[in-house]
Amino acid sequence: MISKRPLILDTDIGADRSPEYFAEHLERPVLSLNDADETVFARAPYLLTWRPRPGTFDKFQALEVIFSLGAGVDGLMRTDPPQHIPIVRFVDPDMTQLMADWVCHQCLNHLRDQSQYASWQADRHWGNKQQQPMASEVRVGVMGLGELGSFAARRLAAMGFDVAGWSRSMKQLDGIKTYDQNGLDTFLGRTDMVVGLLPLTAQTQGLYDRSFFSKLNPDGALGGPIFINGGRGKSQVEADIIACLKDGTLKSVSLDVFEEEPLHENSPLWGFDHIYLTPHSSAVSRDSGLVRHLSEQLQRYESGLPLQHLVERDRGY
Amino acid sequence: MISKRPLILDTDIGADRSPEYFAEHLERPVLSLNDADETVFARAPYLLTWRPRPGTFDKFQALEVIFSLGAGVDGLMRTDPPQHIPIVRFVDPDMTQLMADWVCHQCLNHLRDQSQYASWQADRHWGNKQQQPMASEVRVGVMGLGELGSFAARRLAAMGFDVAGWSRSMKQLDGIKTYDQNGLDTFLGRTDMVVGLLPLTAQTQGLYDRSFFSKLNPDGALGGPIFINGGRGKSQVEADIIACLKDGTLKSVSLDVFEEEPLHENSPLWGFDHIYLTPHSSAVSRDSGLVRHLSEQLQRYESGLPLQHLVERDRGY
Repeated sequence: MISKRPLILDTDIGADRSPEYFAEHLERPVLSLNDADETVFARAPYLLTWRPRPGTFDKFQALEVIFSLGAGVDGLMRTDPPQHIPIVRFVDPDMTQLMADWVCHQCLNHLRDQSQYASWQADRHWGNKQQQPMASEVRVGVMGLGELGSFAARRLAAMGFDVAGWSRSMKQLDGIKTYDQNGLDTFLGRTDMVVGLLPLTAQTQGLYDRSFFSKLNPDGALGGPIFINGGRGKSQVEADIIACLKDGTLKSVSLDVFEEEPLHENSPLWGFDHIYLTPHSSAVSRDSGLVRHLSEQLQRYESGLPLQHLVERDRGY
Repeated sequence: MISKRPLILDTDIGADRSPEYFAEHLERPVLSLNDADETVFARAPYLLTWRPRPGTFDKFQALEVIFSLGAGVDGLMRTDPPQHIPIVRFVDPDMTQLMADWVCHQCLNHLRDQSQYASWQADRHWGNKQQQPMASEVRVGVMGLGELGSFAARRLAAMGFDVAGWSRSMKQLDGIKTYDQNGLDTFLGRTDMVVGLLPLTAQTQGLYDRSFFSKLNPDGALGGPIFINGGRGKSQVEADIIACLKDGTLKSVSLDVFEEEPLHENSPLWGFDHIYLTPHSSAVSRDSGLVRHLSEQLQRYESGLPLQHLVERDRGY
């Protein structure tokens, strides 16, 4: 067991994750980055990290694989990981399902006007029955059709929503109409409720702005466009979201991610009582799933099989 | 057109429904009960009603079919409709879907702890990320497997919940484990979150009481049993619900129906901030669907075909 090659855990990946836990489940030495010294850096082949501090990669002399704690690697890419070292994203069935649960919940919050009912309840008020739209009358558009997006799109379709999908390059999804880069305006024009599950890249930075929101269908069954972001905060322009909520370009939003996290207590977003904010909790990775993923990929790598879920450097995710 | 036989609309079926609207869409004379006189009662064959006042049926001398405004007919049955006159329930695909939307939304409110996040948001507080259970880790039990219940059960399963169903007599649902009267305790014992969609009958009056809640699984992924009622208020014992919420026998509830409606402003139920109350709005019938249903059944009846969705008098629904 001790002869197996060690894994280094970066700091800042979550207080509840101890090296001992990983060592036990991965059956190999696991050291915290803070505890490692020159002799460890000289031979450690594996690093698990999330948003590494500048210079992290310079310490390693024998790094072979970088494991990302999340599916998104924008935080990792900012520290310029060496080009020749493969980066494995954490694509976990648990996280895929958790994200779909969050997306479906948010879509239903808007469909069923959760904040209105909660407000009546808080006021001990028996509100008026409303003729509410059905899921089938609401056109949801999912942006990003990777593991998370395609699974969420299928779930939304199974719940009865009228779903379409968008991705930069064309993807096929059974029973779901899809669009690519060239069809973006058409896709937005048919969409009442847009769900962002895109990675953060040069192309998606600041993508969700006034121009984008203005292209959504203003005449849908919910009475105005809805924006839901479970992807990356820096893809959204919060000043535009706030202005569009005020002038009605957007009816409401659900945001799990923000330009800066945690969201500053003075952000005007907190002041809207008919929107839904969650603290980057849509799909919190679980130690059990992470251990399963690491174990599987390490086993593949050490037995000569190709690694999975590799980041493509040129597209940035 | 005027030669077609008239439909009488009972009062109290909703202010937005005018006789003119129905007359236009059903292409036959439609009169309000209040506006009818002896000559009308002497020949009117059809009545659309919801909770008729005592004596309503005595006025009619030539009644042939009673149409219920809802799928549930307990309010109608209390006025003792004549035994020989068929009663047609309003079973509408729209209402079936609306109820499934409400059920799925409530299940996700509990799964994703909506009230906790709303509370943090109201306090401008960036809450802790929680490791939340996935839908697949939560065992939902649907009681009542008629049109509404079987559709909702399939939707919940499509969303990933671990679903079982219960009905008085055994029903088969593809891919969903079902139980009948004899399996009630086993069904409740495996259930973390129970969804009531039962009609109100002598057997279901007061069914959801402390004894019932005590049989639910206390060790589920949500940390305690959840009760969701989209069926009938008189099936629940609200004093027991309140006591069980206080002592932890129930972790939370979602209620759309109540023993007395509207729910009295002094009800202690308003005082729980981690439960979900909606004002009997889970599946509000729509005029368009009602007209489609009435039109179809009148056409069947007048062309000699059997009526559908008939109430069975001996079972009461």
